[in-house]
Order: sequence, then C-alpha cells, then structure tokens
Amino acid sequence: MNSDMIIRITKYYRILNRLRSLGLEKVFAHNLADAAVVSAAVVRKDFSLLEIHGQKRGGYEIGDLLGHLGKILGKTEEPQNVIIIGCGRIGKALMHYNGFEPDGIRIVAGFDSDPMVYSDSTHPVPVYPLSRIEEVVKAFDVKVAIITVPEGSTSDSYQRLLHAGIKGVLNFSPITLKPMKLDDGTFPIIHNMNIALELEQIFYELQIPKTE
Amino acid sequence: MNSDMIIRITKYYRILNRLRSLGLEKVFAHNLADAAVVSAAVVRKDFSLLEIHGQKRGGYEIGDLLGHLGKILGKTEEPQNVIIIGCGRIGKALMHYNGFEPDGIRIVAGFDSDPMVYSDSTHPVPVYPLSRIEEVVKAFDVKVAIITVPEGSTSDSYQRLLHAGIKGVLNFSPITLKPMKLDDGTFPIIHNMNIALELEQIFYELQIPKTE
Repeated sequence: MNSDMIIRITKYYRILNRLRSLGLEKVFAHNLADAAVVSAAVVRKDFSLLEIHGQKRGGYEIGDLLGHLGKILGKTEEPQNVIIIGCGRIGKALMHYNGFEPDGIRIVAGFDSDPMVYSDSTHPVPVYPLSRIEEVVKAFDVKVAIITVPEGSTSDSYQRLLHAGIKGVLNFSPITLKPMKLDDGTFPIIHNMNIALELEQIFYELQIPKTE
Repeated sequence: MNSDMIIRITKYYRILNRLRSLGLEKVFAHNLADAAVVSAAVVRKDFSLLEIHGQKRGGYEIGDLLGHLGKILGKTEEPQNVIIIGCGRIGKALMHYNGFEPDGIRIVAGFDSDPMVYSDSTHPVPVYPLSRIEEVVKAFDVKVAIITVPEGSTSDSYQRLLHAGIKGVLNFSPITLKPMKLDDGTFPIIHNMNIALELEQIFYELQIPKTE
C-alpha cells in the first residue's frame, strides 16, 4: 500500500466517523470521493484492492467500512496518546485544539523548560518540566510527540524524546529533523511541518505557468 | 523542475540566508546537504541542472548562490504579504510567529467574524471583520491567505478569499479544500495542512514493519 493510499484511507475513515455521528448508516463511493477530493473510481478501486465489497443495491454500510478500515489503520477503542514539547503559542493552541478527540488522538501532557510555564495550572492538560518526559512517556505508553519548541532547542528536544522511548515525531520547528537509528536498530517516524516553507512553496508555484 | 527539487531549492535558499547572516561567505555542497537532509551528490546535481558552477578550489560563493536561487524562486526585496482568516488560538499563534520574517514573509492583517476579536487592539497586526478582506487584499497586493477558521466556516472563508482575488491558500482547517476554477480560468494553489491527519499517518506508519 503506497503512502497516497494510506492518506486516502485515513481520510475515508475520518469522514465515515463524522457521517456516523450524524446518524447515517449507508454511504456511496461518490460521497467519500467528494469529501476526500478524489474521484469515485479511485474510492471503488481502493475498496476493491482491500477486498471490501459494496451491497447489491449499491453503497456500503458505514459500520462495516469503519470496521474494515479501522483494522487496516490499527485503530483501537483506546485513544492514541500524544505529548507536546514546547508550550509557547503554537504548543498551547494545539493543547486547546478540539479536532484531535474525534480522531481518537489525546494530548496527555505538555513539557516546557520555563518554570513560569510549567508551574501555571491553567493549561487544559498538565504541563511538566522537560526532566519528566521519560516518566510520563512510560506512564501513558506514549509513542508520538509534537515538537513546538524554538529553533535553538529543537535538536535537544528531539534527543530527549528518542531517549525517553518516543517512536514518532510531528515537528513544527523550522529545523528539518531526520530519523536517527534507535538503540533497537529501528528508525523513528518523523514528519516535518514547516509552515514558512509551505508558504514559500505556494509563492513559488504562483509564479510558474499553470499546467492545470 | 519537480516539486521535490523546488522544496530542496527553497531549503537551500533559507539555509544560505542564515549562513550569510552568521557572516559566512562560502559554502560547500555537503554543508547544504546536511542542513537540507539530502546527500551532497543531490546538491551538486541540483546545481548542475540549474547551471550553477562552483569555484575552482571547491565550494560556492553564498552571495552568488542566493542571487541564482532567489531568481528561480521569484524572490524580490519586498516582503511577500499574507493575511490570516480566523484569529482563534492557531491564527493568533501564527500572527506572533517570528519565523516568517527571515524568509521574507509578512503577515499584514488578520480577519475574524467575532466583533470581540476584531475590536481587540492588542494583536501584533491589525484584525478586521471579514467584510473588509477585499479592501485589504487590494491595498496590500496580497496573493496568499492562511485559513485557520473552525470546520464549519472553512468553505465560506475560502469562497470569500477567492472572490477577493486571493490566488494561494494554506489551509489549517480539517476540511480538505480543492482548487476551484477562478473567473480568469486559472486555478488557485491550495496546500492543506491537516495536523490530526498528519498524526494519524505517524500512528499508521508506526504499526507497519519498517522497510528502512
């Protein structure tokens, strides 16, 4: 399964969850296609590859689809725990973000180097000093962390996280992190989200002749 | 030039700017490679494709490289103006973010539907009601907007932006936006940044056997 297909399946899964919460029981390929911004043919091809078959009268049972796709995506009833390193404005905004819960993602704690930040008890989740990362990672079985620290602290935060047993990182710092071999011989999964770079690419694409 | 190469060139450009601000005058392919997380051979191949040649003794003049790459990226001395639609926590965090300025990106204004938000004068940039988007876009010659509104307002904000003349959108809402044909027959450039989806992909990748 290639990464584009994984992205599509994740999108189908999220849309199906929303449709179910609206009370729907059945869905057609073109509904999923519209919401995932692909063609209905792509949806049908994906389902056919996954050996998911529609009903005789057309359409799919939402409950069935969620079961199938959830299994592929490794979804469990338990929420997937995530920590945030760096509780500045972006870190705080993510702590307050209510778009994670419906997707089964739970921010369990934040970490910051500044005593003014971690002694403040008004955050929506507990915030601890960096020295307690390992303890919290073990207690909540956390596999994934979000890095929202300033540029100068990125590398240090990354090292601390890997040392504490984190296996996946979503990095918002402008420093591009690369997967480093872990003690067990595996590599962590790193996704770098560079907002300034993303804007620059838009500006670049705007000045080249359109091909679409 | 494919999109991977554009991303690399944007990265080289940013790194070169930082190196120059540190007082450096010369750079080697492997310096750029380390910072952009590619091999030195890739850097050399990119420069060779762009007909950028190194010096006899090896290495490149940083000033020369910035000139060449800046031309390719359409960089001018003027900062590139951007507006933010939706001044909740994420929108505000982006207004305060100081990582745009070094890349020549300037947030010129924010917009919000809530009078409590746009009548508050403590924001780092002016915040206006949505009805003033078109006026500000024209006054500042804004081509690109960042959408940080809640899910339910995404589609409406997108329509307003296109109507006001915006040609590029960085969308942080969980709704995937698709390029819609504009009045002049072209399509806008849309980059969707879905943070929850990004986390879910990391969780998915963590549970499949490593190929690296």
